[in-house]
Amino acid sequence: MAKQEDHFKKVLSHAKEYGYVFQSSEIYDGLSAVYDYAQNGVELKKNIRAYWWKAMVQMHENIVGLDASILMHPKTWKASGHVDAFNDPLIDNKDSKKRYRADVLIEDYCAKIEGKIDKEVAKAEKRFGDSFNKEEFLATNERVSGYQEKINSILARMGKSLENEDLVDVKLLIEELEIADPLTGSRNWTEVKQFNLMFGTQIGASADTATQVYLRPETAQGIFVNFLNVQKTGRMKIPFGIAQTGKAFRNEIVARQFIFRMREFEQMEMQFFVKPGTQKEYYEHWKATRLKWHLSLGMGAENYRFHDHDKLAHYADAAADIEFKFPFGFKELEGIHSRTDFDLKAHEAHSGKKLQYFDPEENRSYTPYVVETSIGLDRMFLAVFSNSLHEEALENGTTRTVLKLPAVLAPYKAAIFPLVKKDGLPEVAREIMKELKWDFNVFYDEKDAVGKRYRRQDAAGTPFCITVDHESLEDACVTIRHRDTMEQKRVKISELKGIIEKEVAIKTWLQKIEV
Amino acid sequence: MAKQEDHFKKVLSHAKEYGYVFQSSEIYDGLSAVYDYAQNGVELKKNIRAYWWKAMVQMHENIVGLDASILMHPKTWKASGHVDAFNDPLIDNKDSKKRYRADVLIEDYCAKIEGKIDKEVAKAEKRFGDSFNKEEFLATNERVSGYQEKINSILARMGKSLENEDLVDVKLLIEELEIADPLTGSRNWTEVKQFNLMFGTQIGASADTATQVYLRPETAQGIFVNFLNVQKTGRMKIPFGIAQTGKAFRNEIVARQFIFRMREFEQMEMQFFVKPGTQKEYYEHWKATRLKWHLSLGMGAENYRFHDHDKLAHYADAAADIEFKFPFGFKELEGIHSRTDFDLKAHEAHSGKKLQYFDPEENRSYTPYVVETSIGLDRMFLAVFSNSLHEEALENGTTRTVLKLPAVLAPYKAAIFPLVKKDGLPEVAREIMKELKWDFNVFYDEKDAVGKRYRRQDAAGTPFCITVDHESLEDACVTIRHRDTMEQKRVKISELKGIIEKEVAIKTWLQKIEV
Repeated sequence: MAKQEDHFKKVLSHAKEYGYVFQSSEIYDGLSAVYDYAQNGVELKKNIRAYWWKAMVQMHENIVGLDASILMHPKTWKASGHVDAFNDPLIDNKDSKKRYRADVLIEDYCAKIEGKIDKEVAKAEKRFGDSFNKEEFLATNERVSGYQEKINSILARMGKSLENEDLVDVKLLIEELEIADPLTGSRNWTEVKQFNLMFGTQIGASADTATQVYLRPETAQGIFVNFLNVQKTGRMKIPFGIAQTGKAFRNEIVARQFIFRMREFEQMEMQFFVKPGTQKEYYEHWKATRLKWHLSLGMGAENYRFHDHDKLAHYADAAADIEFKFPFGFKELEGIHSRTDFDLKAHEAHSGKKLQYFDPEENRSYTPYVVETSIGLDRMFLAVFSNSLHEEALENGTTRTVLKLPAVLAPYKAAIFPLVKKDGLPEVAREIMKELKWDFNVFYDEKDAVGKRYRRQDAAGTPFCITVDHESLEDACVTIRHRDTMEQKRVKISELKGIIEKEVAIKTWLQKIEV
Repeated sequence: MAKQEDHFKKVLSHAKEYGYVFQSSEIYDGLSAVYDYAQNGVELKKNIRAYWWKAMVQMHENIVGLDASILMHPKTWKASGHVDAFNDPLIDNKDSKKRYRADVLIEDYCAKIEGKIDKEVAKAEKRFGDSFNKEEFLATNERVSGYQEKINSILARMGKSLENEDLVDVKLLIEELEIADPLTGSRNWTEVKQFNLMFGTQIGASADTATQVYLRPETAQGIFVNFLNVQKTGRMKIPFGIAQTGKAFRNEIVARQFIFRMREFEQMEMQFFVKPGTQKEYYEHWKATRLKWHLSLGMGAENYRFHDHDKLAHYADAAADIEFKFPFGFKELEGIHSRTDFDLKAHEAHSGKKLQYFDPEENRSYTPYVVETSIGLDRMFLAVFSNSLHEEALENGTTRTVLKLPAVLAPYKAAIFPLVKKDGLPEVAREIMKELKWDFNVFYDEKDAVGKRYRRQDAAGTPFCITVDHESLEDACVTIRHRDTMEQKRVKISELKGIIEKEVAIKTWLQKIEV
């Protein structure tokens, strides 16, 4: 655990130091749970987006893109259920004036009990390592079972009360458990209230007619309201998909873990429209396909797992997460949901417009079912970044920090160095750069010793370093060095493009899987 | 004029019919001045963004990117002047309850007088076409001069009153001119009030500490607050630039002309940091460079002009627009502004953090001056789209609708057709597609006669159509047809990639200019 936390801290500082992620508005002491992508971060983010878009849109005859606006007609969110039900149960402490999610307070309480279980088990392990004592074993066992039962009963009661919107009982539970404000220890609580997570704003031309609108809390609805326009103007036949990437906003009360849960974040979603009754088949198809996409990046199959949902959202008939092993444990990276015809039917009901597909093969109209794949771009960024950051012990006893980003995603594909800043070497280096930069994002550096420049590019995640030396002037060859292996090879300048292309092209990475 | 309006109507309907732009939330009767980019529009928009990014970021050693958040610390907008001064003067009609921009009401009144001038001139032209009459000429001349004087005096008074924030006089002017509500004719007006154009929203964890924040009204400030972090972590040396693309939001009261002026829009901006005293030189450099970028797209030099600002914003010491000939006349497409050190100094003052650059050559610290290039992505989209749409009379007496998008920007680079939907032709067509789609966005169509399919792709803007026929099975050749010339050539399947690449690659287009 300590090692994980330590790694996470390194991720945070490395992200800032190497120009990947800055706190938003840092000079004003930051805006909580909002981050900016810096000069390398913006390129990594773009490359992740492009890798997803190529795989999910352009490789498919039957999937097209969309870019719907962030501001939408407010009825959209009435239809989707967000106005009425996109809430967190909140409680204020009257003394500290701090606000908490009631469910998180209770969950944290349970986590503490879980801590006690861990301690008992650890103690027992230590004792029984010496000699087994049946009575002691049974006693420990009973204590652990008791703790576990208590946790189960608390969570069951909370779950039921939240489901029934019995917020009085949630408050009662907090009082019975004597849960205190974690900051001040005060137990002087207000009632529990529902708090809508959508950011609202006013749009419009006149004081009377100004309309309350929302920043979209998810991108999916932009696809649903455009479903028929896209289908008709694009002459799409079911099954077909509409994909989009874009910002969404949630006024999270408990926002933590860096860019994992932000108030402003970016989603990459694809909604796949299918004939009713076939949704199960496509749900399984997209579960498998999306996992393959992740595996194509070579970040270790052991770092992914499916989590099938037992409890389903009101709109779903099946749902699973692809979880990734983040520095703070396995967490949701992507969701695959079989959303039924809930959304299209709801928009039909609220708009009075038919949102049906006419199936020429069956000669009838119906409301399609929808299978959704939805991944957080910022989470994907964190997954890639944290998984790539390594401290390596070298043979000479030193260590190097290396960011082993999949080459297809790396911000710069190559860095070009003249060995020294004279003798015409910078000119040759810049000539090479001039040619390569049409095809790749390339970095130029002539400062400090070459070894130091290598280290900087290792830490920044650049897959190749190209060094121009005095011999280059004679033989038109340069040294190319691989980030991961640190191997150096002498190659012709004219071969550089082909060598780099082979390692960084989307094709190289995506063709490992069938997309 | 009628012809222009007609063309603009065609642009609107074509944009919807061919999947480029939809009204936002159309099923809910739309959200005013907000639009969605449809399946082809999203690709055109992406391609414009990529063309800009390549030219403005990746081709330059000394320019890097950034992706700052839409939500920023509210002090940002205090420092930038937006909280206090980003206002429109609004007036309500008490009878109709409609709200108007007071300055637009007055400007529209002047436009009507201008209409009278046009009429006098037209009449005179007609009369003098027959025989010149000196007295009549002088009388006409006097009337025209009178009108012109009146306009000048109205606009001068309005400008002065707005500058002095003398809103009482603006109201008085409206009354003196007897300006009526254009919808109802009522002259029953309220006072004129300043209305801030920023969208506000509440962020945060507790009722007392919830913070009023804003959706950014421009992307530039995200660059200024990150200036020092980027400079230090990126080891940038002056002169250097930071570029970003992203959404901005303005609660426009008068939003019109389709995607030209929207409440939600996207900017592509580059802020170039220079040594004080050198800003003029870089201002001229970027004016010239940006115009070259536009010209590289081949949309006609006659459609661009500079408009140098006489009246400068409080932060600028020089400013010019690149205007483009839109369907409704020459309008601003891009702005180049010499912003001085206003923004960095203001953020220093409000944050208490030093935002200075240490110049190693001069061995001293200073606040850099900033030259900005700022283009509206949506306006660029409209410029490209409207300029590309043509109705062509063909030799056989029919007309064709063709969208002559610069090939580098076209959503699909090629469409692939089997001549007929049998005899193994679809299989060959799909084999070709499977290979090409790694490099290009490619469209497949097997429905209807080939002539009809050609027309559809002409109207959608696809530069190449590739047809597989029975002979292709024998000779491994296909017919490739150019959208603009309609020329058809028989070429080897193996040559397709090279032929298309040559016409659509960013390199082909950008290397026409020095970037």
